[in-house]
Amino acid sequence: MDQKYTLLLQRYKQIRGFSKQIVSPLEVEDFVIQSIPDVSPPKWHLAHTTWFFETFILIPYADHYDRFNDKYDYLFNSYYETHGKPYPRHARGLLARPSVNEIIKYREYVDGHISDLLEDGSEELCKQIEPILEIGLHHEQQHQELLITDIKYNFFINPLRPAYHDQKNVSYHPVPRFDWIHFEEGIVETGHSAKGFSFDNERPVHKSWVDDFAIANRPVTNGEFIHFINEGGYEKPEFWLSEGWSIVKEEQWKSPLYWEKNEGDWYTFTLTGMQKVNENEPVTHISFYEADAYARWAGFRLPTETEWEHAMKDASLQGNMADRSLFHPNDQYENSDSNFYKTYGDVWEWTSSPYVPYPRSKPLEGTLGEYNAKFMCNQMVLRGGSCATHSTHMRLTYRNFFHPGKRWQFSGLRLAKDL
Amino acid sequence: MDQKYTLLLQRYKQIRGFSKQIVSPLEVEDFVIQSIPDVSPPKWHLAHTTWFFETFILIPYADHYDRFNDKYDYLFNSYYETHGKPYPRHARGLLARPSVNEIIKYREYVDGHISDLLEDGSEELCKQIEPILEIGLHHEQQHQELLITDIKYNFFINPLRPAYHDQKNVSYHPVPRFDWIHFEEGIVETGHSAKGFSFDNERPVHKSWVDDFAIANRPVTNGEFIHFINEGGYEKPEFWLSEGWSIVKEEQWKSPLYWEKNEGDWYTFTLTGMQKVNENEPVTHISFYEADAYARWAGFRLPTETEWEHAMKDASLQGNMADRSLFHPNDQYENSDSNFYKTYGDVWEWTSSPYVPYPRSKPLEGTLGEYNAKFMCNQMVLRGGSCATHSTHMRLTYRNFFHPGKRWQFSGLRLAKDL
Amino acid sequence: MDQKYTLLLQRYKQIRGFSKQIVSPLEVEDFVIQSIPDVSPPKWHLAHTTWFFETFILIPYADHYDRFNDKYDYLFNSYYETHGKPYPRHARGLLARPSVNEIIKYREYVDGHISDLLEDGSEELCKQIEPILEIGLHHEQQHQELLITDIKYNFFINPLRPAYHDQKNVSYHPVPRFDWIHFEEGIVETGHSAKGFSFDNERPVHKSWVDDFAIANRPVTNGEFIHFINEGGYEKPEFWLSEGWSIVKEEQWKSPLYWEKNEGDWYTFTLTGMQKVNENEPVTHISFYEADAYARWAGFRLPTETEWEHAMKDASLQGNMADRSLFHPNDQYENSDSNFYKTYGDVWEWTSSPYVPYPRSKPLEGTLGEYNAKFMCNQMVLRGGSCATHSTHMRLTYRNFFHPGKRWQFSGLRLAKDL
Amino acid sequence: MDQKYTLLLQRYKQIRGFSKQIVSPLEVEDFVIQSIPDVSPPKWHLAHTTWFFETFILIPYADHYDRFNDKYDYLFNSYYETHGKPYPRHARGLLARPSVNEIIKYREYVDGHISDLLEDGSEELCKQIEPILEIGLHHEQQHQELLITDIKYNFFINPLRPAYHDQKNVSYHPVPRFDWIHFEEGIVETGHSAKGFSFDNERPVHKSWVDDFAIANRPVTNGEFIHFINEGGYEKPEFWLSEGWSIVKEEQWKSPLYWEKNEGDWYTFTLTGMQKVNENEPVTHISFYEADAYARWAGFRLPTETEWEHAMKDASLQGNMADRSLFHPNDQYENSDSNFYKTYGDVWEWTSSPYVPYPRSKPLEGTLGEYNAKFMCNQMVLRGGSCATHSTHMRLTYRNFFHPGKRWQFSGLRLAKDL
Repeated sequence: MDQKYTLLLQRYKQIRGFSKQIVSPLEVEDFVIQSIPDVSPPKWHLAHTTWFFETFILIPYADHYDRFNDKYDYLFNSYYETHGKPYPRHARGLLARPSVNEIIKYREYVDGHISDLLEDGSEELCKQIEPILEIGLHHEQQHQELLITDIKYNFFINPLRPAYHDQKNVSYHPVPRFDWIHFEEGIVETGHSAKGFSFDNERPVHKSWVDDFAIANRPVTNGEFIHFINEGGYEKPEFWLSEGWSIVKEEQWKSPLYWEKNEGDWYTFTLTGMQKVNENEPVTHISFYEADAYARWAGFRLPTETEWEHAMKDASLQGNMADRSLFHPNDQYENSDSNFYKTYGDVWEWTSSPYVPYPRSKPLEGTLGEYNAKFMCNQMVLRGGSCATHSTHMRLTYRNFFHPGKRWQFSGLRLAKDL
Repeated sequence: MDQKYTLLLQRYKQIRGFSKQIVSPLEVEDFVIQSIPDVSPPKWHLAHTTWFFETFILIPYADHYDRFNDKYDYLFNSYYETHGKPYPRHARGLLARPSVNEIIKYREYVDGHISDLLEDGSEELCKQIEPILEIGLHHEQQHQELLITDIKYNFFINPLRPAYHDQKNVSYHPVPRFDWIHFEEGIVETGHSAKGFSFDNERPVHKSWVDDFAIANRPVTNGEFIHFINEGGYEKPEFWLSEGWSIVKEEQWKSPLYWEKNEGDWYTFTLTGMQKVNENEPVTHISFYEADAYARWAGFRLPTETEWEHAMKDASLQGNMADRSLFHPNDQYENSDSNFYKTYGDVWEWTSSPYVPYPRSKPLEGTLGEYNAKFMCNQMVLRGGSCATHSTHMRLTYRNFFHPGKRWQFSGLRLAKDL
Repeated sequence: MDQKYTLLLQRYKQIRGFSKQIVSPLEVEDFVIQSIPDVSPPKWHLAHTTWFFETFILIPYADHYDRFNDKYDYLFNSYYETHGKPYPRHARGLLARPSVNEIIKYREYVDGHISDLLEDGSEELCKQIEPILEIGLHHEQQHQELLITDIKYNFFINPLRPAYHDQKNVSYHPVPRFDWIHFEEGIVETGHSAKGFSFDNERPVHKSWVDDFAIANRPVTNGEFIHFINEGGYEKPEFWLSEGWSIVKEEQWKSPLYWEKNEGDWYTFTLTGMQKVNENEPVTHISFYEADAYARWAGFRLPTETEWEHAMKDASLQGNMADRSLFHPNDQYENSDSNFYKTYGDVWEWTSSPYVPYPRSKPLEGTLGEYNAKFMCNQMVLRGGSCATHSTHMRLTYRNFFHPGKRWQFSGLRLAKDL
Repeated sequence: MDQKYTLLLQRYKQIRGFSKQIVSPLEVEDFVIQSIPDVSPPKWHLAHTTWFFETFILIPYADHYDRFNDKYDYLFNSYYETHGKPYPRHARGLLARPSVNEIIKYREYVDGHISDLLEDGSEELCKQIEPILEIGLHHEQQHQELLITDIKYNFFINPLRPAYHDQKNVSYHPVPRFDWIHFEEGIVETGHSAKGFSFDNERPVHKSWVDDFAIANRPVTNGEFIHFINEGGYEKPEFWLSEGWSIVKEEQWKSPLYWEKNEGDWYTFTLTGMQKVNENEPVTHISFYEADAYARWAGFRLPTETEWEHAMKDASLQGNMADRSLFHPNDQYENSDSNFYKTYGDVWEWTSSPYVPYPRSKPLEGTLGEYNAKFMCNQMVLRGGSCATHSTHMRLTYRNFFHPGKRWQFSGLRLAKDL
């Protein structure tokens, strides 16, 4: 086997292994439930990512491959309509079977076949499957992030409030002074050049005009957000988009998700259980509506995704990401470059940009064309990764996207303004 | 310890043990899910019945008793509003924790304390707790029936269609000739005399006037019900109560629950998986609306509960009940007395009687007063027990009750007519 | 024309005229709306009652009759499924057309044809149509009561709180002393003998056993009900049926429908606008659940319909009924017989009896068989008529019925107890 | 009075008069209903536009002005949360009162006071109110368009299918040859310069980079859209955005709104009743999802709003608009300039641009700041006006916006492509 494919197989095993590592603290029962339609049962994530490799690599490329179980194609297809009608998303938590053990066997079965294929396959075959395998690995990493955020929500709704892992000892660190970093107007180029891996939604490199603008040197903190709460941020419609205000009233939002006030102090649910809110950490688990309302209250705005990418182009790819297995933002403000703190990791940063295709972009051919393009409506772009994103999955041009009312991801904000 | 309480403790252990026997074929994952709001997760049943003994016996009567877990009082209270607000019923399937192991420990903990109480308690204490323990045991047996019917539904909705236990070999037996058994008009007495155990809703003995009537010697069979289907029973509004007809259209009912037609033959989901419908078995998994529509189509009617009880007063308490662990109606028509077949067991028989209090009835005092009385509205009475009812739980005067549209219980019908 | 049919035609015109009288205070806009699915737009009532005569008399019996508008058969069929699929009930308020004027023309068209039929028809034809015409007239009177209660609800939900007619001057009258009237156990006969008009649900005369009981000499008053409220009646689950308690919490019931508390005093919405609650009037606009909870709180119970009918058999058919056009209960306690006050009129009295067929009852043949029988599930019987029921429509054996949670009718209660 | 304000008052009267002209064919009943939450009752539109002048001009600027009715401020506030909680939108069709006559009086009352204010007010006062009056008039014109589209929907859902006005005689005209108009890449300026009236959402003029592109010389026709339907456009998920595909399945869309197939031919509901679809007219009543799916199926895309505005900058402001009172697209292809047909009028053209603020835009101060800015989420921009838009209300920079699934407006599409 070509050295290149040896390394690819090694990465395959590492990434697949990290999924198992994430679920290792769980009880069998924890794998089954779906607390809200947005989240999926952990065992579903484990099976679905496996189905991806089976469906897009083993079925088309492995000779004489037998599916592990024919019904899994229906059960673990997430949304590929051109591939066949998927099992309904909201009902994933009603499936006791296949058991966790069966799904572990399924993973091993598929992993074995993938190994065989890479080890025994011709150079030409390996070349064909490499780009799909790459997508499959990044797909697995996306579901690793969802595993973490879904487990958190599943634990949160349980009145017993179980902890996923042990509490870390925390020492408080100061927040760097807030500062504006300035950029001049002009034509800028953003997007991915297609050297190295990227998703189709990041391509191609394209031009945009940007006016003079400034962007904050660091994300907004819990302490700053508490100020917004205390000044009636959740009670004044003038700060809110109309659809955001409807949710605030209906859902009776008074703070970020997971926060509870107890005798005057704010607490938040974390994967180590309920914790006092650390005012120095970046605020997280807020929706786009809350990020936008905060920015308007503060007299500023959110950056566009073009501004964000242009500003951050020299930041180094490091930070509090999933590799550290903390799975919570912290208050250690590492420099991303001379100007910025916490560009990558900790919290995804909501931008003001709706998620739409880049000029001249082309989705992938065939069923994988559904991977990104069909979601380009009613969602907002987030940038920079979070404490639940693996660093090998992150890059400058990465576009995450969620509906503006969602807040179970590690999502926060960074301010911008016109000059 | 008084011999009487030794025997009571022995019964306690047997009945508690039967719950564990019912769940012994399950995987851990099967204990967690709630496929529809009507059903509860098996682990919830195991915990709730335990909570009953803890709450109504150990807390008030055992010295220095410490709850196993304080939050269980909220999680496993089913509906006793005067005891405190219960955890919402429809969300029972969202609770991964406590784990099955924890609940087994909870059962052992409570069982140990109950043993201690009966073994070490004074005669007077034993006398006080005996009637509550009796209710607790009958309560456990009610949940054993629900365990069986809920597991069946949970397995049914899974596209993998798992089996709960192995298929029994079946030989077909003939159905006894249909016959009408006649009764003369007059004042009849029904209800429980309070010798031996009964629920409050069966008491007191009371008088009713009944006109001349006849009641069928056996329940309606699958074969007879297929005739109703074939003659357009599910398509003709004239046979149906208005609210029944609405459900028929909304839910697109075309047969009893669990039935599927395949190449001209009817199959039904059972705890051994999909099986061909045996036309000689009593029809089951039908709602009151279907029972009533069938009776009207046939030119007859359902019996009142008074008629049923009056007619069956000499039937012997035997039949295909949960003790046999078949958990499915069969076609072996045992005599209940010289006139009737299958009075007890196989299928609950819908009556035409709404579930209301008997004249001069009195609910229990205190929180246990909520046991039956508060459900006396919008439900219909069923009589005779089913293949999922334990024979030690059954009696002539037993009143089961469900909303008229429910059909996940083993419910069927027996015809009656005016003379 | 036979004198008998001359009188029948006269009654036809009087009763049809009373419908027009009821709607005479309305603006055109008031005829259109449907404030909740339970109520229907006034113009729908006017058209539907007309459709009844057209469909069940003119179409089958009048030679060469042309429907006024072919689509009306779909629009104004209320629920006769065997006659054809009706226009959906909840969407009646979305129909701007036909206009009120068109519907008035429709009424005149049908009235003209009915007149012609009775005037020109043979003796034999008149004899055939007479019983259907009788049902049609009683049907029209039922809708007159609904017109009044539906108009009231439609006006209530409007923030402008319009008045339907002018306020009457009210002088307060004392409430007769509460008294129990005793009855001895035995076999009683109730039901309608079929001499004179009755609905099929009132027939036949049949026997029942009743135990010794007592029934109150008058309905419960507003003042007594306020006592229940003040003692926490709406906050204590122990008084409530389970499904009633769910509604109390969901709908946040704290008083009868239409009541509002203002600076310590209770006010109620009436057809003359908001009025201070008169404590001496019978309480009204309460559901069965509230009636039942009140009775339990008071230590008594509701009467069965058999007890009610047996007790009231000598009461004279008089009282505050729709003929007086007051359309509100009053505090003038007229005697119904030497024992009882307000047997008829003012408020319908909830009984503890579910609405089921009488022994040996037979619904009408054909489509009119749907008139009553198909609603015999999940509803409770009320007796005695209200201030919105016409006296020519009332009788001892009359069975009204509603779902136990409904309260937009003029419904109240009278207490009973075991002896 | 200054000549300028005389002309303004004249325009006020003309525009207010046009609202009355639109509703002149209606029956009183037609003013009351709300067939779906998206539409409002015609009388609500008439009152709400009046409330706008009362609230934003008369209350702050007219001395001693008394509100016509204090409760109207609650009933006819549409969505200005900072002004006070509005009456719930979905319940507008439940208000029989105020009657149509009362609302006509309300209009006359407010119109009289506005006249007085302009005629008697000081130069300085007139200068202050002029910009608000301008917004009020454009607001009235927006509701004129909604009056037309809402009346159409209200009539459509009625099984009687009434006509709003008489059918026009139609002669068929040929469709101009399809052609692409090319534009070169570069920095373009779009947005409104604030000379003359514009809404805040059209300002300021700003720069964008556009790549080489081409845009169609005319909108897509019904005939072309039928081709899409015939080739399975509504059955193939690959053409659809995910959320669009969900609606297609849930709502069972098979064609544009209002279309029905009858014996192989397509018919469509219009304000003159059901009509055969004219294949030469621009397709209309399609959602953004359908426009986007059509473009993808055709191998092209929708234009961005920047491309649209840049391309159309020389088009003359003429076309089939509300002034002609046809209220339906036609097949007379007038030139907008030498390149384009039907730039203005007939159908709004969906763009691929989400509705977001322009760079450096500023919403109005105070409550009127809610006019546009707070809706800038989850909606898509449409350009060019329709047959229901008045020509005095239209301009090159006008941004209309709707949720991508809405189709009761006169919405169509024009294709674009990359070069």
